[in-house]
Amino acid sequence: MSGVKVIRLPVDLKLAGGGYLPQIDIAYETFGELDRNRSNAVLICHALSGDSHVATGPWVDGVERPGWWEPMVGPGKAIDTQKYFVICSNVLGGCSGTTGPGSTDPATGEPYGLRFPMVTIEDMVDAQAALLDAIGVKRLLCVVGGSMGGMQALAWSRRYPQRVASMIGCATTWRLAPQAIAFNEVGRTAILGDSGFMDGDYPADQQPEHGLAIARMIGHITYLSEESMRDKFGRRLAKREGHAYDFVTEFEVESYLAHQGRKFVERFDANTYLYMTKAMDYFDLAGDAPSLAEALRNVQSRFLFLTFSSDWLFPTHETKEIVDALCQVGAEVSFAEIKSPYGHDAFLLEPEEQTAFVRPFLESVYEKEFAAASSRLKEGDAV
Amino acid sequence: MSGVKVIRLPVDLKLAGGGYLPQIDIAYETFGELDRNRSNAVLICHALSGDSHVATGPWVDGVERPGWWEPMVGPGKAIDTQKYFVICSNVLGGCSGTTGPGSTDPATGEPYGLRFPMVTIEDMVDAQAALLDAIGVKRLLCVVGGSMGGMQALAWSRRYPQRVASMIGCATTWRLAPQAIAFNEVGRTAILGDSGFMDGDYPADQQPEHGLAIARMIGHITYLSEESMRDKFGRRLAKREGHAYDFVTEFEVESYLAHQGRKFVERFDANTYLYMTKAMDYFDLAGDAPSLAEALRNVQSRFLFLTFSSDWLFPTHETKEIVDALCQVGAEVSFAEIKSPYGHDAFLLEPEEQTAFVRPFLESVYEKEFAAASSRLKEGDAV
Repeated sequence: MSGVKVIRLPVDLKLAGGGYLPQIDIAYETFGELDRNRSNAVLICHALSGDSHVATGPWVDGVERPGWWEPMVGPGKAIDTQKYFVICSNVLGGCSGTTGPGSTDPATGEPYGLRFPMVTIEDMVDAQAALLDAIGVKRLLCVVGGSMGGMQALAWSRRYPQRVASMIGCATTWRLAPQAIAFNEVGRTAILGDSGFMDGDYPADQQPEHGLAIARMIGHITYLSEESMRDKFGRRLAKREGHAYDFVTEFEVESYLAHQGRKFVERFDANTYLYMTKAMDYFDLAGDAPSLAEALRNVQSRFLFLTFSSDWLFPTHETKEIVDALCQVGAEVSFAEIKSPYGHDAFLLEPEEQTAFVRPFLESVYEKEFAAASSRLKEGDAV
Repeated sequence: MSGVKVIRLPVDLKLAGGGYLPQIDIAYETFGELDRNRSNAVLICHALSGDSHVATGPWVDGVERPGWWEPMVGPGKAIDTQKYFVICSNVLGGCSGTTGPGSTDPATGEPYGLRFPMVTIEDMVDAQAALLDAIGVKRLLCVVGGSMGGMQALAWSRRYPQRVASMIGCATTWRLAPQAIAFNEVGRTAILGDSGFMDGDYPADQQPEHGLAIARMIGHITYLSEESMRDKFGRRLAKREGHAYDFVTEFEVESYLAHQGRKFVERFDANTYLYMTKAMDYFDLAGDAPSLAEALRNVQSRFLFLTFSSDWLFPTHETKEIVDALCQVGAEVSFAEIKSPYGHDAFLLEPEEQTAFVRPFLESVYEKEFAAASSRLKEGDAV
């Protein structure tokens, strides 16, 4: 049995870019049980290439598959599914069950392709909020995410201040620096210019593989650090003694990137890649506010931010800007930079260090939240 | 009148990769005059996308064009063409007059394309040495280069220790780190997989534009720094008020990259791009020696290295490794890190800072070299 459920949202979403979707399906999974107080719901938001399968369990084919954040989410883990009710949904515009550019446009009976409306991080969050409404979760103990998932968590705390008791952002940022936009743009250019892209109307089983693989290769360079590349590959040759003096894969780092490119093409959709990177580029937590602090004036949650010393895609100083802004509006913020050689990928590769911060933070929030919910319940307050 | 001369090398070169070229033409330019002592010759080696036109003067079309290192090379400049005899040649494998993959293979009457043999930095240097033989320059006052040009200068000082009185390397390295190889490999993958590449046999006027532009865009990200991108572009939009919510060029940084890609395709050859990046990836100054210091045991020149604080492509710590190795073998080494926000490109953008180091270094070397050459001349020693 698959743990993935699909729900059709009963509401129209007003998309930030002005587009319209006549119907929206959200693929999601839940782990653990919602407690009687409904005070233990944790929403986890996935990153660019993630999906709803955050913890280990049966995948859509019914076969048990490890979750993408398996070392962090599960029984006894930092985000303990014996204690918390964990929800994770595939984002709007995604390619793992939620309505996205690969979905059928009811108006034409054909896949949307590039006719799919642009979606923003805020749109993703609105879709998640509608999902939570539909499954009866009014308030979140915590919304958690790494990288693009952290952007969603940030957007939640600004957009739905009263629904979020706390948020945790790992290896994330409040807006992309031009260098990060530049890397995204090169990846998009590779896809858009692939002769197999066909303006986004490629057949589902015939991706613009070349362009998508290049985009992924670029991505992977930014997910690692110079240090981890030196440790992992150095200048070693893959399966050869001397140089080929030919244009073949020679160095181990080349072989790694080629492998990552190939693997990605098998599981991810090129159009979704375009939409996800664009949503990230557009994201600016400050929005139209005169400053980030002004934008965060109404937040009500507690915050925990974790950064990684060698993450050069979303470097620590960008998170510090969020922390500063939150301090300026008197929010409760915890922040730590974890020393790690793994670059941006560290949020997936450093569970122990993250657990040391995430577990006590969640427990502390839960204690207060549970008490508050219990007293509301006693007073007959509808929750 | 064009200042570019082309000379057919009277020798066979033994190429490091085992390939063979039946004839080699070298396009080169000279600026200034060789003095009576033949003690004032300065060889400047160009970087990946450079050519022989290092100083301002007439280009192949006879029209005066600024040199690529114009602020550093010319009358009264740090490399003073009123004092020094400056030679700059297009590298072997290049696309600006020297024999390269776009040249006609005499055996077939067709362009070489990918049948061109792989060339290394050492091969480029050997071709330059043969050129100097042919024009009667036995000894160099200095060999100078930035980036890939610096690699050639390094190779010169190891390979021809008795012909080089000094060398200057700016923003260079003794071997590429895996991250730099990775960026090169993604660029090559973009070119090789472009449907217009035709295994390297594209018509001269029909480049695989898409792939070459992507390679160049990636390159440009690595030539700038995060800091300079923030200063130069920030998150500003190019010629628009609000977001397009479409896959068009929106941010200034995107517009910059697209422009760089387009411009490059007009002036550079995709096959040469493949050969140049591969030559850089292969370069390892230590070669088969047990250590870099061992490899440099026989050097006889003086050295000056300049790095730039925000250069993350060839970062300062890599040059420090060369400096350490040279110190271990008792070489005369000067080294400075110039504080600059301009990243790797700083060697083209910080002439004043570089002049402060290059001018006195060259003057000091010249004084000794001139005196030595004069005394040899007096003694009737053939120079």
